Amino acid sequence: MSKQELPVVDVTACCAPLTREPLNAAEADELAPLFKAIADPVRLRLLSLIACHEGGEACVCDLTGAFELTAPTISHHLKVLKQAGLIDSERRGTWVYYWIKPAALERLSAILGPRQAAGLVTA
Amino acid sequence: MSKQELPVVDVTACCAPLTREPLNAAEADELAPLFKAIADPVRLRLLSLIACHEGGEACVCDLTGAFELTAPTISHHLKVLKQAGLIDSERRGTWVYYWIKPAALERLSAILGPRQAAGLVTA
Repeated sequence: MSKQELPVVDVTACCAPLTREPLNAAEADELAPLFKAIADPVRLRLLSLIACHEGGEACVCDLTGAFELTAPTISHHLKVLKQAGLIDSERRGTWVYYWIKPAALERLSAILGPRQAAGLVTA
Repeated sequence: MSKQELPVVDVTACCAPLTREPLNAAEADELAPLFKAIADPVRLRLLSLIACHEGGEACVCDLTGAFELTAPTISHHLKVLKQAGLIDSERRGTWVYYWIKPAALERLSAILGPRQAAGLVTA
């Protein structure tokens, strides 16, 4: 696995909750940066604001009003979320629009979820 | 909210996925340290090893073999997880035994989960 860039989430790679089978070192190395990306109150709120915004996407102009932060600071946090593969973006005219990548969030949710959350009941 | 200690997880406090309604600042401030606690490959694996260990609990003696780390380093990581409210522990004789607090993990899972994961389908 390349260490030179943040990992791209392969949502098919693993979804068994960590409470059901031990995470191996490679999985843990891949997941930790994703959790680090959301381990920040501003980034958690940005994710939520984007996901809940009308149409499921938002531009920076929709987001800055919720924070007492400068636009460059908001942009930095958005970049961290994008590099982690949790959101994606596209420029349209003046503004860059952002939307969440639901599969990435769902993968993190499944990893932390109860034993039966993976949809594969092997018992 | 006191900034002097890590927040204690109130699992009844909120479970609506962040994709369904915008997280407020207080919720985000409370959740970010929990995600930070698991945003480390060693701590992710420790959580998983403890949860998957026979009987749902493990002592340090069960955990150190999985890592090329010293016992004090493992103990440090366990302390971070315990302070975040993700695991609990009890000394019995020579060893301290650890177990996960499933409700805390399930809360994090629910926050990241799909809109319908909270068990409250409001359509």
